Amino acid sequence: MQHTITFTHNDNQGSVETPTGTLLSDAAHLAGIDIGQPCGGQGRCGRCAVQVTGGTVRRRSTLRLSPADIEQGYALACQAVIEGDVSIYVPPQEKIERRLTTDRVVAEVSVPSDYEYPFAQTVRRVHLTLNPPSMDDQTDDWSRLQTAFRLQHQVERVTCSVSLLRKIGDVLRKGDWRVTAIIETIRLSDHETIRLSDHATIRLIDLLPGHEDEYSPLWGCAIDIGTTTVSLWLVDLVTGQVRAQVAEYNGQIARGEDVISRIMYASRNGGRDELRQRVLDTINSLLDVAFKRVKLPQGKVTPEQVVKTTIAGNSTMMHLLLGIPASNIRLSPFITTVNQPPLTTGREVGLNVNPEAVVDCLPGVASYVGADITAGVLSSGLDSAENVTLFLDVGTNGETVLGDRDWLVTCACSAGPAFEGAGVVNGMRATTGAIEEVWINSETLEPTYRVIGGGKPKGICGSGLISLLSESFITGILDKGGNVNLMATNSRVRDGAHGGEYVVAWGAESESGADIVLSRVDVDNLLRAKAAIYAGFTVLAENVGIPLETVDKVLIGGSFGKYINVEKAVQIGLLPDMDWSRFEFLGNTSVKGAYLALLDWRKRERITEIAKRMTYIELSADNSFYDAFTSALFLPHTDMSKFPSVAEALSSKVEGRTSVDQGDF
Amino acid sequence: MQHTITFTHNDNQGSVETPTGTLLSDAAHLAGIDIGQPCGGQGRCGRCAVQVTGGTVRRRSTLRLSPADIEQGYALACQAVIEGDVSIYVPPQEKIERRLTTDRVVAEVSVPSDYEYPFAQTVRRVHLTLNPPSMDDQTDDWSRLQTAFRLQHQVERVTCSVSLLRKIGDVLRKGDWRVTAIIETIRLSDHETIRLSDHATIRLIDLLPGHEDEYSPLWGCAIDIGTTTVSLWLVDLVTGQVRAQVAEYNGQIARGEDVISRIMYASRNGGRDELRQRVLDTINSLLDVAFKRVKLPQGKVTPEQVVKTTIAGNSTMMHLLLGIPASNIRLSPFITTVNQPPLTTGREVGLNVNPEAVVDCLPGVASYVGADITAGVLSSGLDSAENVTLFLDVGTNGETVLGDRDWLVTCACSAGPAFEGAGVVNGMRATTGAIEEVWINSETLEPTYRVIGGGKPKGICGSGLISLLSESFITGILDKGGNVNLMATNSRVRDGAHGGEYVVAWGAESESGADIVLSRVDVDNLLRAKAAIYAGFTVLAENVGIPLETVDKVLIGGSFGKYINVEKAVQIGLLPDMDWSRFEFLGNTSVKGAYLALLDWRKRERITEIAKRMTYIELSADNSFYDAFTSALFLPHTDMSKFPSVAEALSSKVEGRTSVDQGDF
Repeated sequence: MQHTITFTHNDNQGSVETPTGTLLSDAAHLAGIDIGQPCGGQGRCGRCAVQVTGGTVRRRSTLRLSPADIEQGYALACQAVIEGDVSIYVPPQEKIERRLTTDRVVAEVSVPSDYEYPFAQTVRRVHLTLNPPSMDDQTDDWSRLQTAFRLQHQVERVTCSVSLLRKIGDVLRKGDWRVTAIIETIRLSDHETIRLSDHATIRLIDLLPGHEDEYSPLWGCAIDIGTTTVSLWLVDLVTGQVRAQVAEYNGQIARGEDVISRIMYASRNGGRDELRQRVLDTINSLLDVAFKRVKLPQGKVTPEQVVKTTIAGNSTMMHLLLGIPASNIRLSPFITTVNQPPLTTGREVGLNVNPEAVVDCLPGVASYVGADITAGVLSSGLDSAENVTLFLDVGTNGETVLGDRDWLVTCACSAGPAFEGAGVVNGMRATTGAIEEVWINSETLEPTYRVIGGGKPKGICGSGLISLLSESFITGILDKGGNVNLMATNSRVRDGAHGGEYVVAWGAESESGADIVLSRVDVDNLLRAKAAIYAGFTVLAENVGIPLETVDKVLIGGSFGKYINVEKAVQIGLLPDMDWSRFEFLGNTSVKGAYLALLDWRKRERITEIAKRMTYIELSADNSFYDAFTSALFLPHTDMSKFPSVAEALSSKVEGRTSVDQGDF
Repeated sequence: MQHTITFTHNDNQGSVETPTGTLLSDAAHLAGIDIGQPCGGQGRCGRCAVQVTGGTVRRRSTLRLSPADIEQGYALACQAVIEGDVSIYVPPQEKIERRLTTDRVVAEVSVPSDYEYPFAQTVRRVHLTLNPPSMDDQTDDWSRLQTAFRLQHQVERVTCSVSLLRKIGDVLRKGDWRVTAIIETIRLSDHETIRLSDHATIRLIDLLPGHEDEYSPLWGCAIDIGTTTVSLWLVDLVTGQVRAQVAEYNGQIARGEDVISRIMYASRNGGRDELRQRVLDTINSLLDVAFKRVKLPQGKVTPEQVVKTTIAGNSTMMHLLLGIPASNIRLSPFITTVNQPPLTTGREVGLNVNPEAVVDCLPGVASYVGADITAGVLSSGLDSAENVTLFLDVGTNGETVLGDRDWLVTCACSAGPAFEGAGVVNGMRATTGAIEEVWINSETLEPTYRVIGGGKPKGICGSGLISLLSESFITGILDKGGNVNLMATNSRVRDGAHGGEYVVAWGAESESGADIVLSRVDVDNLLRAKAAIYAGFTVLAENVGIPLETVDKVLIGGSFGKYINVEKAVQIGLLPDMDWSRFEFLGNTSVKGAYLALLDWRKRERITEIAKRMTYIELSADNSFYDAFTSALFLPHTDMSKFPSVAEALSSKVEGRTSVDQGDF
């Protein structure tokens, strides 16, 4: 049976016909209205709430809706089933700000001192001069080119795609039989060599008329596909220099904020194609920005000039990029289709680079330890560390690697997106309007905060949440178990719709006019996130019998990791309580590893070795993880002896001082 | 400046706006009217004539239009330039009948007696049984599959495309870890072997759930792309049996009837893509018919089941199929882009077969001696003949090969499409309504003819033209030089719009109501066609010092060759005058060669060897060809001593008898 669904959205009205049982979110899609579903349509985040203004829908779930919401007709679009004619008001959603965070992502990076293009690079530029054809020599163009490779470069075997064959006739003639070949070399042995004859096969990537300057740039790019952010470096393969660094939110965010939501969305009809297209759109728009940023005498870089790409990212991101079903990653026993994807091309992946460009998706280890971690281990130097080192990649997934130059063990835990602002009532990403740091006066319990961009606050981002959680605990608003102390003497501490809560900003000062709060539910989500990460590395250390305090260094990767206030992260029990000098913040270790692999085949092979060397420990199969996790679901931990500096801060609070003086602000 | 062009066609009227200088044919295309251009828009064939009913156009050429035509407003759409508002009437064109000529193309073919699938075939079906994953073994699917190949078939290296990786996870689980792999083997050595470990690389073509019956069919197809006709055989690679034979006109015909017209059309904007799509459409519709024709217990064959394809065709057809520019084939020194295309896939070519199917475009020798000839040499057995043999492929191009098991020389000449009915006033293809044989009473000069399908005649096809030319000559209507004897006593012999002509059928008996004639212009085209073919093989024989009469056998290939009346072909000087028992008509030798190569890698390598062994002689660079050609521009030849049987027939005519008694009919 068909029903008429009438939508009102942004002053527009329109209607669609759908059969009984259709999801409201699908009907909206049909009507051309894009309702963001950060949790992937699981009814978990509450962001897709719409108002039913006529008729009724069946609500499969009302999680995230208060009784008052339901009374006003609110329903989650992803959970509302159509059973009759209805009218729907779609309120304006929080916009996903597509801010190019170039200011934050520009990392200082220097070309490795040992980089010598002809020895290290698998992509090369060679010159060829052919004898022109005549009535006495009617050899076909392709055989003529192969002969020139044999006679001028001792190459026995050259391969070429049919697509590239389409242009060689024109190029040979345009160049008057003098051409430049861009080739991919596949080595016969591990021996370092610049002689092409030592390569088993040469693959033709491009053919250009005339002899191009040997020192002019040859373009490559290194990409990290994060669940939240995609980073791209445009590199001159001849000099090794990074010529542009750009980053943008992953366009898949609108269809799920964590990998599990994305996998679930991908399982829906058409979902896999949509997610693939979304991340491709993100990468291709980043390429476009990067191309424009490099100033060349002859204009900007063109897509055809990019002849090699390395890609890092977690296993789910890699599957979604390549259009490979990811559903088994989510289901026990958690199996990827492929950890080490075959070398492929720009055309096959769908990147706006040379269609024949080498595209090298770096190898991962397991469903939840992907190429972002193997690349991160390489660029962090963990795999050659003399002393035992801990590497944490703090993001939506919390991956941990422990080891040194002789051994490496790894595990992953789902921290969830709480630290990135999702699953938290007033959470948001670290964009303009986000409260990024909070200080609470331990006597008055009045807060002071800093907002990104300096305007009115819209919500609280990850670093703000860490800060707020820490301050609330140190000032006694929250107890060790995360319970809100409703006996506190400030009206900011109150009983809210979701239990006890603390008002960080009153409606009068906020952008939306509504209070910005930290609720009991939020605290639980944050505790689970930090407990998962903490339990991850502690269980890993226990598993290999390494006391955490003997770890020489803690290397922290992930763009998130760059902005954490270490003291507060220790106070909530996210990071271990050790001398701050042992922490090192490395920024995006994944894209840096992809860059090193882009330049040098020895570094690239090292990533394969790292992937092989890493012993993956599945935490979900480990009872001790569950124990460690539950012990860590406290502020900072059930066992205070593990956090002596926090114990000291608490005792100084008792003496009437806050841990950080507000005067610092 | 924009002009309004109003078209009237099939009772419909519509108009488009185009700028000054637009070709009328392009304007019609814009208006959605498809005007066939058999000569590729060169103004040569006159088939695209339309009537200007209002306004005027500039006629770049009026070739093929009589003064009366021009007076009535007729213009060639491909030669008419728009310079103002005009109204155009597009008359109904001769339809290209897309008749499936299966009745004619079904060749008797038996599986080679030495065919043993596991030894000869490069495509194989293997069974694999994998250990299911568990929490103790979280190996990724692709590595697990590779391990099974290594342990169960001693295969060290398996490759797989990203596209195929997309399905392996589902297939492994659907088959409960028992799967059938369809693989392409690439041999390490020439040694015959069924051990997979003797192959350098295994490429995965498909993966299917469960263990498929080892003897169930594995599908392949052999294709010959002729300039006029495309033939396709659907083959069970396990038994080697041809299960369906289908053929259809090449959809490119509407854009040029010979290779030169096609090359010119391809050089136009968008022309190359259009021609590629047209031949793909033809092949894919043939596949569809072939699939339906095979009855299987589980239904019809599906595209995904076709895992290997071999393709033969002349060099221009091969370039156009692969989308490779063909313009240099036409221009001195006549260079192809590629004679031996790399192995490719169903996806890359655009065939409606398994996207990973091996597609093997067979190797050619030169611009005008393509894979249809190398495949034809193989299937004709010429390359292993004990005595000197002549192989003729009679078609739009006339290719000739002379040799035996020790040597092979080849040449080609452009015969033109006259024998296929193009470039002849009342010419048509051999479909319903075509006069296919003519007898003329030598006393009354009254004709008798046979029409394909038995109805009213529409025109004359190739075999009818050979017959008519021969009869007109033997009965004295035409003299040795092809001139019409206007002193003849029958009113059928008359002075027409294009010079002297002979009326084969009066308007009262024809389909259109107009007279069907053989004109002086037609005779010239036919003479040029037969002279080119005759000169080709005689010059080739002279070049290698082999007197034509010492040739042991004349093998005639091409679907055309099957229907030639040998006596009449000798009488016009198309075939040499020798004992008819030395002629052997082989039908489509090209598709048969493609079939042999499809089955057996040794036969496939033999084609490569044939291509290498063939010495190509470029006739356009040879003065003796021009001499031989001009000497052959007579009926049957200037030198009657070369045609003793014809001299005899002429002398018996003098005695008052026709060479063939009408009573035979």
